Amino acid sequence: MGLWASPYSLRIKVALKIKGVDYEYVEEDMIRNKSQQIVNYNPVHKKVPVLIHTGKPIVESVVILEYIDETWKGNPLLPQDSYDRAQARFWAKFIDDQLTPTIRTALMRKGEIAKRATAEAEELLKLLENEIKSGNKLFHGEGVGFMDMVGIVIAYWVPAIQQAAGKQLLMRGSYPCICSWACRLLACSVVRENLPPHDKLVSFYGDRIAAVLTKTPKL
Amino acid sequence: MGLWASPYSLRIKVALKIKGVDYEYVEEDMIRNKSQQIVNYNPVHKKVPVLIHTGKPIVESVVILEYIDETWKGNPLLPQDSYDRAQARFWAKFIDDQLTPTIRTALMRKGEIAKRATAEAEELLKLLENEIKSGNKLFHGEGVGFMDMVGIVIAYWVPAIQQAAGKQLLMRGSYPCICSWACRLLACSVVRENLPPHDKLVSFYGDRIAAVLTKTPKL
Repeated sequence: MGLWASPYSLRIKVALKIKGVDYEYVEEDMIRNKSQQIVNYNPVHKKVPVLIHTGKPIVESVVILEYIDETWKGNPLLPQDSYDRAQARFWAKFIDDQLTPTIRTALMRKGEIAKRATAEAEELLKLLENEIKSGNKLFHGEGVGFMDMVGIVIAYWVPAIQQAAGKQLLMRGSYPCICSWACRLLACSVVRENLPPHDKLVSFYGDRIAAVLTKTPKL
Repeated sequence: MGLWASPYSLRIKVALKIKGVDYEYVEEDMIRNKSQQIVNYNPVHKKVPVLIHTGKPIVESVVILEYIDETWKGNPLLPQDSYDRAQARFWAKFIDDQLTPTIRTALMRKGEIAKRATAEAEELLKLLENEIKSGNKLFHGEGVGFMDMVGIVIAYWVPAIQQAAGKQLLMRGSYPCICSWACRLLACSVVRENLPPHDKLVSFYGDRIAAVLTKTPKL
């Protein structure tokens, strides 16, 4: 169960494709009409993606990725070496817990909140840029890995949200290594073939930004 | 490398003890005098705990726990079944990303921010209470597991922060299953023998709360 516009749902689609697992995809209208099934399957967060396997629900995209990797052993998503696995989990956590929420705030909010988030996002992007520059093989070394799957949100979603917001944050000139990693990632057929259309995503985020700005009191 | 008052450092100590791994512990004065070593080993977060193994640093406590579990196979921390592993990772994430930060805000801040966080923390605690009540075996089933190790922050730190703040949030009357899980967990010798003294922790958080309230503008 997923939402077409969710980068977290896309991770699961790409992972199942890499593993060669057939699945039935159920689109959830998370914005206007959340189904009772989602609430039943994920009572804590009431969010997609939810993977139902052998009748049992698994939620939280990185938890699902680990589950998929353990359940279907072929074409491993995580590296084989324990230290590299730790590095992949670390950078995935960095992208999900720090970089993405900060970039979203920078792009989707206004005023002082956006200004502070922009400065913070620039620092975080510099850290990622330096890591890729240093030659870390996790960033799309051979094939699309766990960390790459998590990183699609930066590679494809951030440019769309930037366009919807009319702001520039992630630019090739400032972060050449991130942008070149993003290009390589999006060129992979298993990623490219599953991406939602760029224009549709820009329009979706245009609506989301308008909704957020209407709801948020001016600060 | 750890800090005596950090629940995240304690997880690693307990995990290494369960695995029977000898290690050298280096105390870091994170509050007054952060060492250059910590900045070098963990340039992204500049935080403890850091595990140095075969000369390489691993950071982020749950990433370290997974690394320890993969590197030293005896006495597994995560369950063997993939679905149970996903559940353990899910609840660990819930405790770290949602429950703990919300409780900290509820206890360590004042005014409207604390009020909102208290209401939110009560909802989250109810979810955890119901999960333990439903008989989920992850909550200290047999021996101390991955999720239990993450949960020590709720079992031991929250009562100390409550006392330091002079507030009550997690009470036996309201959350009997959480409290009974906490008691069972703290009664395990591998946990108990590694805990920092309660009074010292209360005094540490008393100072932290005073520092937070001084720095935070009134809202």
